[in-house]
Amino acid sequence: MHEINIEEKVLHKNDEIAVGTRAAFRKMGIFAINMVSSPGSGKTSIIEETVKRFGPKADGIAVIEGDQETELDKERLLKCGIPAHQITTGRACHLDAEMICSALEWVMEQRNLKLLIIENVGNMVCPAEYDLGEEMMVAVLSVAEGDDKPLKYPALFNAADVLIINKTDLVPQTNFDIERAKENALKINPGLKVFTTSCTTGEGIDEWCAFLAGLAIKGTEVKI
Amino acid sequence: MHEINIEEKVLHKNDEIAVGTRAAFRKMGIFAINMVSSPGSGKTSIIEETVKRFGPKADGIAVIEGDQETELDKERLLKCGIPAHQITTGRACHLDAEMICSALEWVMEQRNLKLLIIENVGNMVCPAEYDLGEEMMVAVLSVAEGDDKPLKYPALFNAADVLIINKTDLVPQTNFDIERAKENALKINPGLKVFTTSCTTGEGIDEWCAFLAGLAIKGTEVKI
Repeated sequence: MHEINIEEKVLHKNDEIAVGTRAAFRKMGIFAINMVSSPGSGKTSIIEETVKRFGPKADGIAVIEGDQETELDKERLLKCGIPAHQITTGRACHLDAEMICSALEWVMEQRNLKLLIIENVGNMVCPAEYDLGEEMMVAVLSVAEGDDKPLKYPALFNAADVLIINKTDLVPQTNFDIERAKENALKINPGLKVFTTSCTTGEGIDEWCAFLAGLAIKGTEVKI
Repeated sequence: MHEINIEEKVLHKNDEIAVGTRAAFRKMGIFAINMVSSPGSGKTSIIEETVKRFGPKADGIAVIEGDQETELDKERLLKCGIPAHQITTGRACHLDAEMICSALEWVMEQRNLKLLIIENVGNMVCPAEYDLGEEMMVAVLSVAEGDDKPLKYPALFNAADVLIINKTDLVPQTNFDIERAKENALKINPGLKVFTTSCTTGEGIDEWCAFLAGLAIKGTEVKI
């Protein structure tokens, strides 16, 4: 009980910072999304494909990368020609609002920024509890992980607004059933918007990008 | 700084309980292993294949299953004919020593138990910090997750004694390089013993089972 109280205090403090960060993003006309998944579900690859699809319009996109160690993901994204900022969390298993708030100066230096993609630390559990000031949480599930995951890790699927079922090209090599995964996820959260994608075949990337392009903040369309 | 102190106190208390649990396991002649990985790396499938391979000798094996929700994994293992006990952690993202200690009564009820497999909550980050009283921590990495994971999540690979690189049948469909993954893991922890397995083709399962069968506690061979 004592531990829970401490945890709730930490989360309460986090939420307060997130409210301020969200207000700052909105003021700047930035739509922020928080991508959450297990390690290796393909978050970075989805961002790379998204940037490629937007082409010159990708000028309006920037990425904050969260990892325990290394700047490998930041380097991958810089190669795509978009601004990327790495947060290494050390022992921490998730990004928190304070870390994002500390990156606000970097965010404000990015010109014409419309869409800020925050790629969280690879972890299907803890990041779900930490509001980063985003407008939208996107859960990513690779088909290699199994279609039972929404039932076994409901917190993420409950907190998310969008679910991307990724690596669909691997379905023939697995016993993953896309319809069952969707059903399981919608059982947890009937409001989830679901996309199915493959960065190898390109399946679903256009739909995902069209959705991103159509996102609005306070009635203002985000044109990217 | 304040948060770190609290975390260290929690870990210190955990370690104290783990010392007692380990002593109890040793006294009972039980070799306990703690399997840690991201969700969906194939931990449960590896246990199923292990049980099948041991055949009638699998009498000496029992499993404690950790998940945030559901008893799906316990049910899978009961179908294999071995005793399984489910711990659902709710919001907690890892098993801790107290949870395992609470399962000791169940453990003691299992007759002729030689090998206790603890399947942790699917999470590559936090479980690495929590000693459960095991003799050996086994990290599992699916090839679908990418060969850069040991560098990005070093804590687990540093804490583990064994690394199983699983789902090798999917290598042709990915850009995973087994040798690079091994190199990356051994850079973090040169003492890691590495197995490569596939529960689909059966690759490496014999080697893994031979290793398990040969495990010793205090000089006494564990015969399973």
